[in-house]
Amino acid sequence: MSKEVAYNEYANEITEILSKGAFLTTEVDGVVNTMTIAWGSVGFMWGKPVFMAMVRPSRFTYQCIKKSGQFTISIPFKDMSAALGICGSQSGRDTDKLAAANLTTVPGKKISTPVIADCGLHYECKVVYKQEMSAELLATDLQEKWYASGNYHTLFFGEILTTYVDE
Amino acid sequence: MSKEVAYNEYANEITEILSKGAFLTTEVDGVVNTMTIAWGSVGFMWGKPVFMAMVRPSRFTYQCIKKSGQFTISIPFKDMSAALGICGSQSGRDTDKLAAANLTTVPGKKISTPVIADCGLHYECKVVYKQEMSAELLATDLQEKWYASGNYHTLFFGEILTTYVDE
Repeated sequence: MSKEVAYNEYANEITEILSKGAFLTTEVDGVVNTMTIAWGSVGFMWGKPVFMAMVRPSRFTYQCIKKSGQFTISIPFKDMSAALGICGSQSGRDTDKLAAANLTTVPGKKISTPVIADCGLHYECKVVYKQEMSAELLATDLQEKWYASGNYHTLFFGEILTTYVDE
Repeated sequence: MSKEVAYNEYANEITEILSKGAFLTTEVDGVVNTMTIAWGSVGFMWGKPVFMAMVRPSRFTYQCIKKSGQFTISIPFKDMSAALGICGSQSGRDTDKLAAANLTTVPGKKISTPVIADCGLHYECKVVYKQEMSAELLATDLQEKWYASGNYHTLFFGEILTTYVDE
């Protein structure tokens, strides 16, 4: 069971938990993949609620989002560190990460991408804007710290179509 | 008087109030200017809390942020619609908007840009990344709705150096 809530009703918790790990899930031609994220933002842009996710082009998820134009975010309201560890260290190219992490999914309500079952809060998002980062526009210390070998993130801005919590 | 808080302690309220209007303040060579914003986001990127502000290049604020590399955000916790209306419709190029809107400022704690006095919550931000939007990457309906005459926003990502509320 789940309960629909305002996109920002849990924004305090979301920004706090996000930095410790959440799931970004994609679906292409029936194949579901999830990855661990720790960065992102929640906001209001172009008159809409928006979740912004950062994905490096080396990630399997990158090509999945580009193909599907949608993604879901599942924010754990309980300790899921073991599953987050697996989904953050393996690649969906050669592993069924959901099985490896013992995760199941629940169909999306507004989009074909599912969410992680029994987790916490979920956003279903449709990509409305995306942009590759430009290296030279980032502060030098952050370039060195996070992009020593390039592989700059693409920022995927997803309109939040619905937000709900497991109950 | 003000009290320091976690950057996300009021994220629920911030995202709610932001869409109705908040102040983005800049300072260059001692000249303070403020504008009304209704879009933006709060998140965690590059290991840091970040407020992302959107400013069109036609705005006086645009060149001010580019010069100073910093800005403050003041989120009203009370009705300041009259001041928001003035700061959203006049230009700092030819008007002292603060005087026109009967606003006063308080010096920043970490940066030289002040915040709006007696307002609510404040973020002091240092720009760590900025990027002009690319028209063709935005959903077509949003292009038509918000950018019929071009003037695409630049996204200014400001590391939140401190967050505090008036009390």
